Amino acid sequence: MSGNDRTPVTVIGLGSMGAALAQAFVRAGHPTTVWNRSAEKAAPLVAQGAVHHEDIADAVAASPLVIACLTTYDATLAALAPAAAALTGRTLVTLNSGTPRGARQMDDRAAGYGARFLDGAVKNVPAAVGLPDTLLYYSGDRATYDEHETTLRVLGGDTVHLGEEPDLAALYESAVGATLLPTLIGFFHGAALLSSRGLKAGSMVPYSVKWLEMIIALLPGIAEEIDSGDYSRPLSSVGNFYEGIAYDKELGEEANLDVAWTEPMHDLLRRAVAEGHREESFSVLYELLRKPAQSRV
Amino acid sequence: MSGNDRTPVTVIGLGSMGAALAQAFVRAGHPTTVWNRSAEKAAPLVAQGAVHHEDIADAVAASPLVIACLTTYDATLAALAPAAAALTGRTLVTLNSGTPRGARQMDDRAAGYGARFLDGAVKNVPAAVGLPDTLLYYSGDRATYDEHETTLRVLGGDTVHLGEEPDLAALYESAVGATLLPTLIGFFHGAALLSSRGLKAGSMVPYSVKWLEMIIALLPGIAEEIDSGDYSRPLSSVGNFYEGIAYDKELGEEANLDVAWTEPMHDLLRRAVAEGHREESFSVLYELLRKPAQSRV
Ligand SMILES: NC(=O)c1ccc[n+]([C@@H]2O[C@H](COP(=O)([O-])OP(=O)(O)OC[C@H]3O[C@@H](n4cnc5c(N)ncnc54)[C@H](OP(=O)(O)O)[C@@H]3O)[C@@H](O)[C@H]2O)c1
Ligand SMILES: NC(=O)c1ccc[n+]([C@@H]2O[C@H](COP(=O)([O-])OP(=O)(O)OC[C@H]3O[C@@H](n4cnc5c(N)ncnc54)[C@H](OP(=O)(O)O)[C@@H]3O)[C@@H](O)[C@H]2O)c1
Repeated sequence: MSGNDRTPVTVIGLGSMGAALAQAFVRAGHPTTVWNRSAEKAAPLVAQGAVHHEDIADAVAASPLVIACLTTYDATLAALAPAAAALTGRTLVTLNSGTPRGARQMDDRAAGYGARFLDGAVKNVPAAVGLPDTLLYYSGDRATYDEHETTLRVLGGDTVHLGEEPDLAALYESAVGATLLPTLIGFFHGAALLSSRGLKAGSMVPYSVKWLEMIIALLPGIAEEIDSGDYSRPLSSVGNFYEGIAYDKELGEEANLDVAWTEPMHDLLRRAVAEGHREESFSVLYELLRKPAQSRV
Repeated sequence: MSGNDRTPVTVIGLGSMGAALAQAFVRAGHPTTVWNRSAEKAAPLVAQGAVHHEDIADAVAASPLVIACLTTYDATLAALAPAAAALTGRTLVTLNSGTPRGARQMDDRAAGYGARFLDGAVKNVPAAVGLPDTLLYYSGDRATYDEHETTLRVLGGDTVHLGEEPDLAALYESAVGATLLPTLIGFFHGAALLSSRGLKAGSMVPYSVKWLEMIIALLPGIAEEIDSGDYSRPLSSVGNFYEGIAYDKELGEEANLDVAWTEPMHDLLRRAVAEGHREESFSVLYELLRKPAQSRV
């Protein structure tokens, strides 16, 4: 079938991300088969050398390694149902977003099909797929990962196995990803403050870049505080942030912004002060996010 | 008085940041005078070569350039009142946090004293003061900045003049700083998700670093969308984030976290979808943070 020794790969789902994955395999010389619900999305990949099957069972049967990148686990379960028999004995890898529970369901279903299974996450944008520094992580059976690691590394040079539990990739994706929306809204908020004075968001970018680099440099120390539970030697205290609440409010009002999104963060700071954490490191907010045991009843 | 040609500097306020500023000037060979409300904080600096005055008017009179780093503008106004006459003809620089309004009040007061004035902000931690890459920005009279730029650069190699309006440094400090609390709480949230599975926050750090670097790389494009008002070619759509709300909720409940702080961010996404922005770039959330004109009444 193929003139090289690279593992044949089937990519299911040719949205923005799936198309980038398929393209990376084609470019790396893997015999690549593609399938998409809307068949027309296969055309650009076929033009680059991929094989297209309209029938998902045929697409799955074409390769020992099947990589699915649809919107959700539910969509993936639905799309793969007609290919159940074809999946037996193959390896299925899912690269969509979702919850750990979704990943566990996917793992169960794959086991039911007699397929081996890895769940993974692409921690970057489609344009970064295939670059040496791009991070993807996987979880599930280690031997399955080891067998396909070289092939998976085509998608990004920073390819990691997190552990055998099949839902770890989904868990880390959510945990790591939890900074995205708040960081971006923080940036929008800053841009809105500037706009109230007729200043461009672009004028803030070099400073915001440095500022986020500074935050990045804080993370190892913060993680140490969290993991040790010792908040007694603050780099910056709860009190410092607490003092800032009044400025945030005043400035938001002055600039006529909708600051509602900052309210519950301020509530966390107020609670931390009320519970006696004022002089402790702001990392103690981590403890407040974990519901107290009694609330579990 | 001094055996060198470096501008004598007085540092008012020897908290964590003020002490770092004074130390940087001493190390750089500037004749350095210090004052602090609690006089005992001057001792380590005197040991390094600074001159200490108990009387703030004497401390101010010792140098043409006076740098104040107290907690707030109000504290600075109060502390400097007895030194009003001594300030005449000198340059006062404030490096505390605060609102643009506070900076304008400070500017008025300085003018009343017959002092020239710059407001500034140290965009880093005390340990970074004096390093070549450390960012500080200033606003106020350009000629005053030019006269003292070399001296100010002692505090950090990336020293910038933002413009002549005296409150621009405070404005940019708040605008740029608006990512800090939400980004950190996002990290705490992720750490709390991991802890529900017995995993350490430290295990997430390398991935979080990469993730924030990815966010940094998005900022120029986001700023372009905001500044052009064109949200029609999304790198990532409002819809993508909107789909994620259900996962966030499910996972937070599974892990027994307090997810209240994410609610208003989700409300923003819901509002954006309701107002027809689903297919547009998530940067359109910026528009929602700016209150509509009618709410200004
Ligand atoms: N794009 C990114 O920046 C990015 C980054 C990291 C992770 N991800 C994740 O990657 C996954 C895919 O994202 P994307 O950006 O590629 O999404 P997308 O461009 O919207 O594509 C979605 C894909 O899923 C397919 N699909 C959806 N429901 C289906 C169903 N019921 N049956 C069959 N096919 C179905 C679509 O098929 P049709 O073409 O027929 O509609 C399309 O191939 C998501 O989980 C996303 O969170 C994306
Ligand atoms: N530390 C940081 O990481 C950091 C980073 C960037 C910016 N900043 C900003 O730098 C400024 C100073 O922060 P810091 O960390 O140095 O604070 P700090 O360690 O708490 O020190 C506060 C200083 O203000 C003085 N002070 C407060 N109220 C006063 C009053 N009414 N009269 C006279 N002196 C008064 C204190 O004097 P006593 O010693 O007598 O109490 C002390 O010198 C703040 O605006 C902060 O936001 C700090």
